[in-house]
Amino acid sequence: MTDDLATVGERAALARILPRLAAAEALLGPGDDAALLAAPDGRVLLSTDAMVQGPDFRRAWSTPFELGWKAAATNLADIAAMGGRPTGLLVALAAPGGTPVTDLEGIADGLAACGARLAPGVGVVGGDLTRSPVLSLAITVTGSLDGRDPVLRSGARPGDTVAYAGRLGLAAAALRLLFAIGEEDEAAVASLRRAAPHLLAEQLAPSPPIGLGVVAAQAGASAMLDVSDGLLLDASRIAAASDVALDLDLGVLQDLADGVRSLGEPDGLPTAALPLGPGEALALVLGGGEDHGLLGCFPGEPPEGFRAIGVVRMGPAAVLVGGEPVDPAGWDSFTAP
Amino acid sequence: MTDDLATVGERAALARILPRLAAAEALLGPGDDAALLAAPDGRVLLSTDAMVQGPDFRRAWSTPFELGWKAAATNLADIAAMGGRPTGLLVALAAPGGTPVTDLEGIADGLAACGARLAPGVGVVGGDLTRSPVLSLAITVTGSLDGRDPVLRSGARPGDTVAYAGRLGLAAAALRLLFAIGEEDEAAVASLRRAAPHLLAEQLAPSPPIGLGVVAAQAGASAMLDVSDGLLLDASRIAAASDVALDLDLGVLQDLADGVRSLGEPDGLPTAALPLGPGEALALVLGGGEDHGLLGCFPGEPPEGFRAIGVVRMGPAAVLVGGEPVDPAGWDSFTAP
Repeated sequence: MTDDLATVGERAALARILPRLAAAEALLGPGDDAALLAAPDGRVLLSTDAMVQGPDFRRAWSTPFELGWKAAATNLADIAAMGGRPTGLLVALAAPGGTPVTDLEGIADGLAACGARLAPGVGVVGGDLTRSPVLSLAITVTGSLDGRDPVLRSGARPGDTVAYAGRLGLAAAALRLLFAIGEEDEAAVASLRRAAPHLLAEQLAPSPPIGLGVVAAQAGASAMLDVSDGLLLDASRIAAASDVALDLDLGVLQDLADGVRSLGEPDGLPTAALPLGPGEALALVLGGGEDHGLLGCFPGEPPEGFRAIGVVRMGPAAVLVGGEPVDPAGWDSFTAP
Repeated sequence: MTDDLATVGERAALARILPRLAAAEALLGPGDDAALLAAPDGRVLLSTDAMVQGPDFRRAWSTPFELGWKAAATNLADIAAMGGRPTGLLVALAAPGGTPVTDLEGIADGLAACGARLAPGVGVVGGDLTRSPVLSLAITVTGSLDGRDPVLRSGARPGDTVAYAGRLGLAAAALRLLFAIGEEDEAAVASLRRAAPHLLAEQLAPSPPIGLGVVAAQAGASAMLDVSDGLLLDASRIAAASDVALDLDLGVLQDLADGVRSLGEPDGLPTAALPLGPGEALALVLGGGEDHGLLGCFPGEPPEGFRAIGVVRMGPAAVLVGGEPVDPAGWDSFTAP
């Protein structure tokens, strides 16, 4: 493997990566000291998130393309969660000297493809390539509100409908499968990829409903966030910021859990991790995390693409399931309603 | 050391860090899915740069405060180099679980202090805290051109004056001292800090002339960048982008090198790395790197704060010293004029 970052050098590697990122609508893209982006209403939304090899991903499970895709998708979701339209990505990529340049090209392709698919017109406008003992991607995403107010976490009011757009529990179900397989057995990982490609994509290359962020804002969403740490925990953040109780409908949640169970039973899965029991599936829906869908509160009917999953009640701040208070950090499928 | 990141947890750590970053003038700061910043002329400058433990810094040499300061300073310089006014910082901080929370507080203090000193009003508006095997800081900086055109690398024209604002060679001289001391002997590092605090600060916590970026733009700078990889190499980037030759004045460069030699001889330095020979000092001025001052080209007189160091001549693209072509990547103090 002579064609690695250390052999090729930073400048030659960048010369191979940058053309793959060319789709961005920037006033001034990569190549100078800074990029220049339009901020049409005189404001810019900004969020940053890093993914580090080990805690956040395993090279044995994720292709470079998937790493780039996921890094872009999770960051785009933060702009959508404000009711914003993503406008650009900046990428600080840190990689060991032995990293094949083809891996960096794969990451770049994933970043570009995710932007093109989930937020057409959005690409990488700037970045940095650094040596590091471990691979990491720190992404900054920009967005525009196009004159609207941002949708904060603090605006939910009693009587609002709680609604969700995107998948719930599937990313965690896929992670459970991957942990059951482990990192050592390449053939087993490959077999799992063949048996359950769509389920694995929920974890490795998710496609959150980025465009519904603006739709939700236009529909008058009173509060919104993207669910990254589990439905209950993120619901508790809206509850705390808005000083209200979010009462989630147990029947709807169980219906979602049934969906996770049925999607989690493809033929030929080479693992004993499935099928999930009903309680296990519900736990993944409520606390699995990495879903990156949009949890919003709406004074009226939620817009198309959102499913009503509960109602906002008077405070004190709490999350209820079927009217019963639950501890968001301590959800337990054995003690749950 | 129980008060580390893994013990305290991400949320409690953030609760201790965020109050230290409060000075930023954001429309919406940390706490929601994204920050919201003013972009008064409908455009935003953006740059991102990462610093990784090992390749970019050593814990034995840099205090947490200095790490935060340097990460902010080097990023602010990228906005200044476009002729922009910095407006905000986003920080993706990745740290091992065993990192003391007091270290994270120190980094936050350094970030905040650097913003307050070098770009008053600019602070941290958003960020991310992640677990990682190695400490790294990926910073994104935003800026405003306030209606002006950006100062690119490509605008230099024959007859322009080449000028520089900031220090040259001192950061590299300090690094040379640190390498001579090594990482093992804590007492020697402490002794070096006492003997040469100002020289070490050029490497560990630099103060590039951020405000002069706007001054240069207002004075009509035709091209500009910040010198991070050495004067000759960065000069060659302006030369290539503008298709001109930058002819640097050997007398001025030798005068700068004399300055490096005199500053590099404080009493009681516990190392044989100094004093520098004349050729060594000139090599540091020309190729040392990490200076982060502003190299600009001006059709007229450079503004106050810049020192004329050469003149722009007709292409082909090249860097000359005293009229003689030099290889920017291969500067050698033994073969140099």
